[in-house]
Amino acid sequence: MQQSKLENRQITLASRPQGSPHNDNFALNVTAIPEIQDGQVLLRTVYLSLDPYMRGRMSDAESYAEPVALGATMIGGTINRVESSRHAGFSKGDWVLSYVVGWQDYGVSDGTDLVKLDPAQAPVSYALGMLGMPGFTAYMGLKDIGQPKAGETLVVAAATGPVGATVAQIGKLMGCKVVAIAGGEQKCRFALENLGVDACIDHKADDFATQLAQACPDGIDIYFENVGGKVFDAVLPLLNTNARIPVCGTIATYNATGLPAGPDRLGLLMSTILVKRLTVKGFIIFDDYGHRYSEFASDMANWLAEGKMHYKEQVVDGLENAPEAFRGLLEGKNFGKLVIRVGDDELA
Amino acid sequence: MQQSKLENRQITLASRPQGSPHNDNFALNVTAIPEIQDGQVLLRTVYLSLDPYMRGRMSDAESYAEPVALGATMIGGTINRVESSRHAGFSKGDWVLSYVVGWQDYGVSDGTDLVKLDPAQAPVSYALGMLGMPGFTAYMGLKDIGQPKAGETLVVAAATGPVGATVAQIGKLMGCKVVAIAGGEQKCRFALENLGVDACIDHKADDFATQLAQACPDGIDIYFENVGGKVFDAVLPLLNTNARIPVCGTIATYNATGLPAGPDRLGLLMSTILVKRLTVKGFIIFDDYGHRYSEFASDMANWLAEGKMHYKEQVVDGLENAPEAFRGLLEGKNFGKLVIRVGDDELA
Repeated sequence: MQQSKLENRQITLASRPQGSPHNDNFALNVTAIPEIQDGQVLLRTVYLSLDPYMRGRMSDAESYAEPVALGATMIGGTINRVESSRHAGFSKGDWVLSYVVGWQDYGVSDGTDLVKLDPAQAPVSYALGMLGMPGFTAYMGLKDIGQPKAGETLVVAAATGPVGATVAQIGKLMGCKVVAIAGGEQKCRFALENLGVDACIDHKADDFATQLAQACPDGIDIYFENVGGKVFDAVLPLLNTNARIPVCGTIATYNATGLPAGPDRLGLLMSTILVKRLTVKGFIIFDDYGHRYSEFASDMANWLAEGKMHYKEQVVDGLENAPEAFRGLLEGKNFGKLVIRVGDDELA
Repeated sequence: MQQSKLENRQITLASRPQGSPHNDNFALNVTAIPEIQDGQVLLRTVYLSLDPYMRGRMSDAESYAEPVALGATMIGGTINRVESSRHAGFSKGDWVLSYVVGWQDYGVSDGTDLVKLDPAQAPVSYALGMLGMPGFTAYMGLKDIGQPKAGETLVVAAATGPVGATVAQIGKLMGCKVVAIAGGEQKCRFALENLGVDACIDHKADDFATQLAQACPDGIDIYFENVGGKVFDAVLPLLNTNARIPVCGTIATYNATGLPAGPDRLGLLMSTILVKRLTVKGFIIFDDYGHRYSEFASDMANWLAEGKMHYKEQVVDGLENAPEAFRGLLEGKNFGKLVIRVGDDELA
């Protein structure tokens, strides 16, 4: 079922998942393509970003952002073309990044939430990854909270994903020893060959914790936390005095329906924070660091232009495949930044 | 058994405690008073400080400092008089703060580790409390990690102890709403009447968590962690976005012989750090902030001179009573800064 000029497909939240999302938590809805008023633009979606944070928005547990309402269109970042414009600042054919369209073919904007993209500078879809929210997350978390110094050991999980791969490469640019963690031999080989990391450990290996310890003979100075679960368990005893832990995600727990069995290690974590004098700091990128976006955008554009950043995307065709692809993302089945190609690049 | 001019009593570590220390983990040893060489001073102990961190030194579990060896004299801060001097920088009768004498009547120093005290400025024992390590811990943890702003809600436990009482009073000086936590009605009344806190909650109350929530209708912006355990459990759900948690101690766990029963809340704490964007940072005062001691000493001396700081000591007579007093400290039985009077103020 392809994108049409006649109707608007939207994927809505049909029910809240218990545990891993199922396809019937989503519904495909078809509506008319919206009309625009003066001051508005009609946006057609070309790429939809799939990101772990969306799992939180499907739940009504208290979090840092409002949940998606039942029956509402799933939220997300999109790359759109302007199909028609009654706004002086935008012309038909413009490429933009938006966060108000979400999982659908068409949306309407008054322009305030749009970021114009220059397709000559970089592939437009990069604005969903290394040049956008995930890259910005990696950049600020590592620089501002991680405070990397040359010679230090930096460990980053989900190392072939858009955040992890960016953390790993910036870490190398800053002179760190970078130990990557990824799921499976293929991803580890990619990290070693393309991201320039010093080692990559497969978290699926039976002796994962032992391998990680062997790869970090001088301990761990920075652990960029985007995973949680057994990866954090293996990292915790290896942390050095004064280690820093930026926390941008705990994907291992997103599908959990309850707390795991004991013993209760909450007190152990607090006493480790004391004894090792750790800094553990959570952040939500645009809320905490929105004012520093231009610093990131400038550095990252330069690094990309200089060929210093490698970026891998996995493009899945068809809006209708977004739910299944999203389920796979939460299980680590994606390889690189996951985007859905919703429609054609070209104007009609 | 009083301090003598003829012999040196020392309390040594006889065995490592499992759980709460017992009196037989300590031994009383009597030796000759040491002789001094050129460049040395003979120190006589007047006050010995008892502090929760000493429990960690009795254990051989990995920590930030070496454990006390079996058979060695227990370590600790002391206030000493110089009994005789063959060091140009010290004269008989000088008052000094030392960390090399520990739990004994006499010690020898080459002067490098001594801090001279002026008894005209403040009672010399204050250098073991508000004017020393505990006060410095309170000052830097609150100022540098807590980053207090006027109008914010600061929660501090063990509020009548030397760290907590200092945190509470500096918090008020900085314009915070201060909610104290202490054990029992007497301590809470003291905190309200003498420390100027806005509320004090008795952690022994059955509905402690409910009372704490009611006392913090705007949530908690800073939690100064020196306790852990059920106090932290009650604080966690009340923390605001971007709250800060300086961690200087977790006394509730110091006597633990294993981890408590589940469920395992380690992942819950990490996801709370993310969702609420918390900053959790452990510190060991002289290791992390030694270079800022003069800033503390100056501010605190001024506040004391201006009558802005209230300080409560509990003085227990007799070195032989230190083990029992220390056991009580770990159970919250002390009221105010616990010091042992080991000997007379006056010179012979």
